[in-house]
Amino acid sequence: MSPEKLLPTISGPEDLKKLSIKELAQLATEIRARIIETVSRTGGHLASNLGVVELTLALHYVFDSPRDKIVWDVGHQCYTHKLLTGRQKEFARLRQFGGLLGYPCREESEHDVYNTGHASTALSAALGLAVARDRQRANHNVIAVVGDGSLTGGVAYEALNQIGHLRERLIIVLNYNEMSISPNVGALCRYLSYLVSGQPYLRIKEQAKSVLRSIPRLGWPLIRAARAFEDMIKKTFFPGIFFEELGIRYIGPIHGHSLHSLIEALEHARDYPGPILIHCVTQKGRGYRPAQLDPEKFHSASPFNISTGQPLSREKTMSYSRAFGEAVAELGRSDEKIIAITAAMTDGTGLNQFAEENPDRFFDVGIAEQHAVNFAAGLAIAGLKPVVAIYSTFLQRAYDQVFHEVCLMDLPVIFALDRAGIVGEDGPTHQGTNDIAYLRHLPNIILMAPKDENELRHMVYSAFRYGHPVAIRFPKGPGLGVSLDKEFRFIPAGQAELLQPGQDLLIAYGHVVNIALEVARKLQEEGLSLAVVNARFARPLDEIMLPELARKARVIFTLEEGVIEGGFGSAVREMLDRNQIYHPAFKSFGLPADVYPVGRPEEIRKVLGLDADSLAAAIRDFYQKQKLL
Amino acid sequence: MSPEKLLPTISGPEDLKKLSIKELAQLATEIRARIIETVSRTGGHLASNLGVVELTLALHYVFDSPRDKIVWDVGHQCYTHKLLTGRQKEFARLRQFGGLLGYPCREESEHDVYNTGHASTALSAALGLAVARDRQRANHNVIAVVGDGSLTGGVAYEALNQIGHLRERLIIVLNYNEMSISPNVGALCRYLSYLVSGQPYLRIKEQAKSVLRSIPRLGWPLIRAARAFEDMIKKTFFPGIFFEELGIRYIGPIHGHSLHSLIEALEHARDYPGPILIHCVTQKGRGYRPAQLDPEKFHSASPFNISTGQPLSREKTMSYSRAFGEAVAELGRSDEKIIAITAAMTDGTGLNQFAEENPDRFFDVGIAEQHAVNFAAGLAIAGLKPVVAIYSTFLQRAYDQVFHEVCLMDLPVIFALDRAGIVGEDGPTHQGTNDIAYLRHLPNIILMAPKDENELRHMVYSAFRYGHPVAIRFPKGPGLGVSLDKEFRFIPAGQAELLQPGQDLLIAYGHVVNIALEVARKLQEEGLSLAVVNARFARPLDEIMLPELARKARVIFTLEEGVIEGGFGSAVREMLDRNQIYHPAFKSFGLPADVYPVGRPEEIRKVLGLDADSLAAAIRDFYQKQKLL
Repeated sequence: MSPEKLLPTISGPEDLKKLSIKELAQLATEIRARIIETVSRTGGHLASNLGVVELTLALHYVFDSPRDKIVWDVGHQCYTHKLLTGRQKEFARLRQFGGLLGYPCREESEHDVYNTGHASTALSAALGLAVARDRQRANHNVIAVVGDGSLTGGVAYEALNQIGHLRERLIIVLNYNEMSISPNVGALCRYLSYLVSGQPYLRIKEQAKSVLRSIPRLGWPLIRAARAFEDMIKKTFFPGIFFEELGIRYIGPIHGHSLHSLIEALEHARDYPGPILIHCVTQKGRGYRPAQLDPEKFHSASPFNISTGQPLSREKTMSYSRAFGEAVAELGRSDEKIIAITAAMTDGTGLNQFAEENPDRFFDVGIAEQHAVNFAAGLAIAGLKPVVAIYSTFLQRAYDQVFHEVCLMDLPVIFALDRAGIVGEDGPTHQGTNDIAYLRHLPNIILMAPKDENELRHMVYSAFRYGHPVAIRFPKGPGLGVSLDKEFRFIPAGQAELLQPGQDLLIAYGHVVNIALEVARKLQEEGLSLAVVNARFARPLDEIMLPELARKARVIFTLEEGVIEGGFGSAVREMLDRNQIYHPAFKSFGLPADVYPVGRPEEIRKVLGLDADSLAAAIRDFYQKQKLL
Repeated sequence: MSPEKLLPTISGPEDLKKLSIKELAQLATEIRARIIETVSRTGGHLASNLGVVELTLALHYVFDSPRDKIVWDVGHQCYTHKLLTGRQKEFARLRQFGGLLGYPCREESEHDVYNTGHASTALSAALGLAVARDRQRANHNVIAVVGDGSLTGGVAYEALNQIGHLRERLIIVLNYNEMSISPNVGALCRYLSYLVSGQPYLRIKEQAKSVLRSIPRLGWPLIRAARAFEDMIKKTFFPGIFFEELGIRYIGPIHGHSLHSLIEALEHARDYPGPILIHCVTQKGRGYRPAQLDPEKFHSASPFNISTGQPLSREKTMSYSRAFGEAVAELGRSDEKIIAITAAMTDGTGLNQFAEENPDRFFDVGIAEQHAVNFAAGLAIAGLKPVVAIYSTFLQRAYDQVFHEVCLMDLPVIFALDRAGIVGEDGPTHQGTNDIAYLRHLPNIILMAPKDENELRHMVYSAFRYGHPVAIRFPKGPGLGVSLDKEFRFIPAGQAELLQPGQDLLIAYGHVVNIALEVARKLQEEGLSLAVVNARFARPLDEIMLPELARKARVIFTLEEGVIEGGFGSAVREMLDRNQIYHPAFKSFGLPADVYPVGRPEEIRKVLGLDADSLAAAIRDFYQKQKLL
């Protein structure tokens, strides 16, 4: 890697504008090296960021941020933008506790206009900014940078529909790389790919011209007809007819790593009086061979060895995702009715094995969580057994569908909520902390969470037998390394597990059961006796074991990795009230409804008082306040 | 209206197939008369149902339900379907307690394949049914009937994207009537309307042919070019290029009231080996002049006089919707930053006055709740003051956007949740009972609900001043008829109102405050003393007044018109625990997380024990059980 010469001289976008194209290209090289070096230490979104280095340079070269507003869709491609807007020093602490967020962040810089993290939102937001600009008689530019993967999300289309309707001045940069996270799917993607091939356009346009030339003399009707023909040619073979039909001017495809082409196209767009879309073709992982060869692996990478591309530490224990995926694959072998669905996360959700074994029973619908759920409902109505694997934070997109399509009709659809709880480095938009609260009031649904990867297997097995909607939540990352039972075991809905007896009561839900055990151990050494329950279910709760234990307890604690407001603890409290158990003091531990800092999950747990030490201290303190010590 | 001759002879779809086209037309007339007569008594979706009489007849004539699966999008057009599938007698009790649901209902009939109520879901569900058919080697037809309004919802597009990708055999009937509920908006709608005009297609296609004919002799290159031209002509001027580019065969536009054309098109579609869309043009309200003239008014009509079209009873008191709309209009006059947004519900949400006065500050985005919220976030970022009026049940669609776009960034967007609580006649899909539970764990949001229409005005005024996300929930229907203050009054966030002192405590949220007062009055006569609090806020709660009153109480009751699980009562309970107020007995009254029956709100309240008499009895009973009486 070459030593940096230009990058340190760039303290803001204005410094870019003094550079020549050649210098910009040199800067691109330096930025790539910096991104690779940093992400190899911190982990992060490598492939998407390497793909947009030139595009970001061209954007800041042509436009004047922060006067002009750049909105990054998803936001996992903003590293170059951060490096160009005064955050080079902080960049070393990307995604670290107290460091830079890996996504746009208004609190960090005035150049970050709009926070993102979930996909497909930039078009709507940019339209809002454009309308506000025009209503307030300003004249800056608004630019939305959107990947083709994001165009599979319905809200992007809702926005295009209004953008084409209102015709406000707005620039859409379509960053086309044939990937959302998994390789892209869907008819629109195929169409974009057809546009990029470019061949039909050029060839047939030439043919058309030659036909027109071959007509020797044009009388009046023929002239008119020829004009109609020109129109036809333009409409048919001007590639972006899909967008043009929606009222959005299309230019492209543009070579997304040619600074010259990009700058030219953006300058053209800057002058355009209505909505205009520039279709840029970029390569994910550009400039780093391992990422180019496997962009899905390097979508969100752990720290890695730069020269080999191999992760620095291999997880020794099986991840929850993999335990889930293997269970589905195993069950799928003997049950042809099982269908697995993902929304652009085949690898992330561990479904790759099932997908390989059963290509005709596996569906990646793109970044389209709403459709994923409706589609599963249709399959379930017809007697199949769909399992929909979506991260906790992304299933939020389909909250209404879970209610309206699945729970109201009481259909046996299984939701596998990976990345539930504190997710960490991806920051506030990705925490899987709301699912208990947003699901537990829906009719008919069963909510469960395993204490370890072995129990997860039994829960997947059991879920297929309940005949009701089921959501299983489990965390990101490795399990406990426990041994896996060969035989699946059925767990009746609502059956908790008493892990350790005691005078008072600590009820934990999901992977934090293990923290609860540690807390109880610590306190036992101090003479405090807590029964520890692995609740397994947030709904239905165990209405036999829990009331029985509660009646004997002086104090009841609950522990969950989810928001407290309306969460698991709140469910336990309601159950106690339903059973008219009013006497024990009650305290729930969980997350406040807040915007959490970025960092490793352990760090965030500590800050929020959810590590074993903090919890033990808080419980001790509670006993003292209640005068039970 | 002619006496019915044919309709009574139709006990199922098979009876249709014996009829001639002429008889079918006669049947259409009888069905229209029956629908008009019934809805004039029961209320219901008149305009949409009158629009699809012929289409439904043609569907049941060509296909074999229930073997063939018909999925009705939204479902507010299924009355003819219900009349043709063995439910003529029950139809008299449409939307009545214990009677027929106004939407498809699997529990009613095997001909109702998939329950709907919310828009834009049928395409995904139908794809699920089609995939399940093919995986199970069956060969029936799957038909989705979708209005053009539903195509403005993003999930419909997510489905189209996968339908075009998978290319399973599937029939889409696009019922085009230029209306969602409000007149349709959006670029796609404009495009569909252009297709229906039909003129450019026919004229230019003829011209193109004449040019081709005028070329006297075709050499080899010219033949190739001519073929390319034909392709061009087909692609450009075959109207549904938007759908064709997505891989979906298009036929249309078809006259949607011509049985002959409809049957021919559907028979053609029945034989088609991939996804095919039939674009039918229908007229909302067809056959009943008042509904034809004002389809928005007759979208969901109250009982009316058939000869005049006038509603049988005029509401004497102002509705909550109107009080909200007038407050926004008043505030909008002195504050140019206020922007109002609706998702296809201009009239329903009471925003028509604001829209008339400020056409450039009012946006109807179509049935696109997700985009509505993102768009508002963009406006708020730019310093404007958006208010987004969406029914409680429909904001469920934008749960993730409320979290990700608005609450995480703490943007001052106001959500007006009309139809909150028990909605009644529209049935389970439309109850506004989840919003407290799905919103109250989101960061930064303020949740409020007025006790009457006057307080609603002050809440709207206050909401614009908090500088945070705010959701105001209020019910369908008339207010209490209280007089309206001329001056707006600021209510500090989290300030409750003690309406009546007493020994124990009854805390109510929203319009049920009035039921709480009635309950307290009844019990006072029996010597029970309850303080009644109008909570006003579910978040933040009044952490001064409520703990103070709670510390003195022996029992605390809460009352809300929302799900109990994670709802308002649960919030109060958490607050008591936060304040370590453990001694009082506690009971919350609200709705179970369940599928509620159809009927008038009063009837449903009674069934669920939420009327004043039932509540008073339950409280008396609770005192006895707690040995406080």
